[in-house]
Amino acid sequence: MKIAVDAMGGDRAPEVVVDGAVQAARDLGLEIVLVGQKGVVQAELEKYDTAGLPLTLIHASQVIEMDEHPAAAVKAKKDSSMVVGMDLVKRREAAAFYTAGNSGGALAASLFRLGRIRGIKRPALSTIFPSETPQGYSFLLDIGANADCRPEYLLQFAIMGSAYAERVLGIANPRVAIVSNGEEEGKGNQLVKDTTVLLKASTLNFVGNAEGKDLPRGLADVLVTDGFTGNVIIKLTEGVAKFIKDMIREEITSRGMSKVGGLLAKPAFDAVGRRTDYREYGGAPLLGIDGVVIVGHGRSDARAIRNGIRMAAQTVENGVLEAIKQGITRYQQ
Amino acid sequence: MKIAVDAMGGDRAPEVVVDGAVQAARDLGLEIVLVGQKGVVQAELEKYDTAGLPLTLIHASQVIEMDEHPAAAVKAKKDSSMVVGMDLVKRREAAAFYTAGNSGGALAASLFRLGRIRGIKRPALSTIFPSETPQGYSFLLDIGANADCRPEYLLQFAIMGSAYAERVLGIANPRVAIVSNGEEEGKGNQLVKDTTVLLKASTLNFVGNAEGKDLPRGLADVLVTDGFTGNVIIKLTEGVAKFIKDMIREEITSRGMSKVGGLLAKPAFDAVGRRTDYREYGGAPLLGIDGVVIVGHGRSDARAIRNGIRMAAQTVENGVLEAIKQGITRYQQ
Repeated sequence: MKIAVDAMGGDRAPEVVVDGAVQAARDLGLEIVLVGQKGVVQAELEKYDTAGLPLTLIHASQVIEMDEHPAAAVKAKKDSSMVVGMDLVKRREAAAFYTAGNSGGALAASLFRLGRIRGIKRPALSTIFPSETPQGYSFLLDIGANADCRPEYLLQFAIMGSAYAERVLGIANPRVAIVSNGEEEGKGNQLVKDTTVLLKASTLNFVGNAEGKDLPRGLADVLVTDGFTGNVIIKLTEGVAKFIKDMIREEITSRGMSKVGGLLAKPAFDAVGRRTDYREYGGAPLLGIDGVVIVGHGRSDARAIRNGIRMAAQTVENGVLEAIKQGITRYQQ
Repeated sequence: MKIAVDAMGGDRAPEVVVDGAVQAARDLGLEIVLVGQKGVVQAELEKYDTAGLPLTLIHASQVIEMDEHPAAAVKAKKDSSMVVGMDLVKRREAAAFYTAGNSGGALAASLFRLGRIRGIKRPALSTIFPSETPQGYSFLLDIGANADCRPEYLLQFAIMGSAYAERVLGIANPRVAIVSNGEEEGKGNQLVKDTTVLLKASTLNFVGNAEGKDLPRGLADVLVTDGFTGNVIIKLTEGVAKFIKDMIREEITSRGMSKVGGLLAKPAFDAVGRRTDYREYGGAPLLGIDGVVIVGHGRSDARAIRNGIRMAAQTVENGVLEAIKQGITRYQQ
């Protein structure tokens, strides 16, 4: 299977991207097509012993920067690594595209070049969210593709999220909840109330509202929300986790007595770090696009890149696109 | 100063409420009027030596339970502790009302009995939110009174939050930010974009967007959002903090090597617990109501109750109602 990788996307591209791509080719036996500025990517590749590895390079002269306006940049830069990479998927020369670049750009480029799956009104950015389910996480969407949503979008997010959870995460009959301001039925803003009617009428395994404190508790496998709230959720989770860890560290270093304790407790802290680390999961699938696109965190390191490429391969292997297409037909009138 | 206290409100009322009220009367020199079912409240009071303390009791035969429909319960139970307590404020027989009961009920009762401040479109529930500002927290609103908001509501929340931050929290010229899905200007759902226009046109110290990860970072003193998002924020913060602490504890106990570390690090954990503990702050002011009303957490213990009563007194002393009335006139056309 051939995966196209945006060599220019991410805060430390192309260095860490090439590093991660080499790892993916070596460890996972995946065929990788690096897309980017030939000279700089080639120079990075030469740092590694890539003899015999299924790694190729396709030139793209332009780069969509992290701070550019997504839609404008995608339209202006037809030879950007992001657009060229999407086109490889469109022409079926690659099975999937992975980028750790500008996520708005990835969304715009995928909409322009690959388009939406027939029947899907809006694509959604989704992510693994650490929680106390048996598998150790829930699947959350939308986390930022659509700041303003309609009930039909959220129903479709639930369908897409269920398809992904079943196919890639291996969760049978995934429990779907809608994020709300209260767990009781009837709580919610108008969007939640209207979506609830649609979710109840569907054949999805809808379990009701999930309020903020329940999100890490794993009461549902798929958590559906609008892209505004979803974005606040993932970034706040990151912020609070950092705040608590910093505070514990600060308290430990400011106390003579517990300094030793801090050192001895370090392995536990590290384990917690691993369990809440986005790098373990590698990326956010962009669901609803007619092609497999995974968007990595801009801060991704080589390991996150490698895992993101693996996620792209798993999404292809497990037929997520087909499952979404079937789901849209099955669950909707 | 006389503070009316809902003796029947909260998961462990009237026990912990009476305990907290006795502490407030003894430690803070506040005159307390306990409102509730005479027999049970009197029985609780008898557990303490209240000789000489400024504690009185006003009978209210009914109780609004935690799971009742707020508006219906308030209408049906005219002799509930919540309604009777609000009426004491209305008749100026008490300077403020504190309840740890049904927060929807408190909102409904305050709207029915006290009404809104002239010019205020919607009241907001607000709270201290731990963050890295110099004072150690930001002030967040709305956290649940209004699931669906209009831009004018959010502008008024900003005005009310600024007034509270200046008067009670002692923050000069408080920085106001709006919660959004991205820190860059232009990011946001339609509500955020429309509110931003109003905030910029006001004379508030508006500093722009605050995204999820920035909320604990203390980049603003007043954080404004709709009641849906605000509710998700406070409950998710609670959930994530618990998740991380549980995980660290679990990792520590499952590792022989770091068990000792965990014990030695305990003082640090406890300090973190105190800094993120809602009980330190005691309650959520209900701003925009024409009277001082503080709503405590249903899970409040005696210390939280005592601190909530103190918060009510501070809100009165520092003239928050007057400041809001002036603010509405000053900032708006």
